[in-house]
Amino acid sequence: MKTESIEYQDGTVTLRGFLAYDDTKSDLRPGILVMPGGFGLGANAKQRAEMLARLGYVALVGDPYGNGIEINDLQEVMQAVSALREDLAKFRQRAQVALDKLTSLPQVDPRRLAAIGYCLGGTFALELARGGAPLTGVVTFHGGLETQRPAGLGQVKAKILVCTGADDPSVPVAHVNAFADEMTKAGVDWHIISYGGTAHGFTYPDAESRGIPWIAYSKLADERSWQAMRSFFEEIFAAA
Amino acid sequence: MKTESIEYQDGTVTLRGFLAYDDTKSDLRPGILVMPGGFGLGANAKQRAEMLARLGYVALVGDPYGNGIEINDLQEVMQAVSALREDLAKFRQRAQVALDKLTSLPQVDPRRLAAIGYCLGGTFALELARGGAPLTGVVTFHGGLETQRPAGLGQVKAKILVCTGADDPSVPVAHVNAFADEMTKAGVDWHIISYGGTAHGFTYPDAESRGIPWIAYSKLADERSWQAMRSFFEEIFAAA
Repeated sequence: MKTESIEYQDGTVTLRGFLAYDDTKSDLRPGILVMPGGFGLGANAKQRAEMLARLGYVALVGDPYGNGIEINDLQEVMQAVSALREDLAKFRQRAQVALDKLTSLPQVDPRRLAAIGYCLGGTFALELARGGAPLTGVVTFHGGLETQRPAGLGQVKAKILVCTGADDPSVPVAHVNAFADEMTKAGVDWHIISYGGTAHGFTYPDAESRGIPWIAYSKLADERSWQAMRSFFEEIFAAA
Repeated sequence: MKTESIEYQDGTVTLRGFLAYDDTKSDLRPGILVMPGGFGLGANAKQRAEMLARLGYVALVGDPYGNGIEINDLQEVMQAVSALREDLAKFRQRAQVALDKLTSLPQVDPRRLAAIGYCLGGTFALELARGGAPLTGVVTFHGGLETQRPAGLGQVKAKILVCTGADDPSVPVAHVNAFADEMTKAGVDWHIISYGGTAHGFTYPDAESRGIPWIAYSKLADERSWQAMRSFFEEIFAAA
């Protein structure tokens, strides 16, 4: 497997993503954009890209902040996320340039694209979908579901799978229900999996070490949601 | 594959189930109880049993009414379901005798049991779980989630997967949320998949022919929920 740092631009901001793919193959493969959470481009997202590459996909981890930085302090994360989300058009653009970079890669079949995201990255992926990006699918893991600009009827091209923890205080039932309504009104093919007894950050094996009480790893929900994503990708890329 | 009609008793009522298994194998296999919906023991449930047998399970379709009868008239179905559900202990017993029959079969590993159910059959499967039946897992498809006797803490041995249609008028969001609360309080390992744009009866290929406006087949939700069940069984029986 080949992994490498890969640079691209969002206006004047230089972003540094992480690419993973099987370099022993020469066929065009589906490209998966992986958008990390508010902590930035860290080990968890890189590991997901490598797991996707082993499944036969070309995976690019998008860089939310620039220079591939990680943020460890929760206050700083909150500030950085707020700054990013202030302007929805710019927020969508930050994910769009990563998707454009992925689409441009010679290994990627531009007709078979998906975006997955964790926490803030889930919101990135959903905003790409709401904006009409040419994605076959979107999968979010403990991703934020709220938006300033709900999708209009027929705008969303992606099929959507949301994986969420029932005890995630940042994604309460009210958000889940509002999202379901939004997607139904927009005519989207969607399904939502709610995992019982599961907190925010359930895919982060290092969640405990961050010392944030409402973030907790769940091996069960992590493995189940990954399996759900795999089945979903097999379905949507077989049909594409 | 071997299929056969199989008789068992609930008190004075003679029930006639449908058994399916691979008779070229001699090892002990997980046993899956399949509880059909309010239309009774018909072609849909039998087909599920055969699909489960092809996956390597021993599948018994339980008979809700006796003599393996089917009911086609919706009014009659409503009456028959009401009569069954009047007494919760008897209702649970109707599923328990089917589970007992399955457990007694020489091909079945009594430590690896699950129950799945459709519509009313989903309620049967959940009531078995609430009553503490020795099930490794329960999966419901457009099943009724309400109960007269919510599960107490630690009572439920089964891990539970609920597959439900977001547009199913018989399983509104309020029922889903109440069920999630019940299961969380009872300490159950649960997850719920909600399928967008999906009505009641989404696994019934013959739904349209029944002329009931709130029942509709969905190939997508049918195939996705079946795949979710398969992944769930692989997980729980590997760990059991």
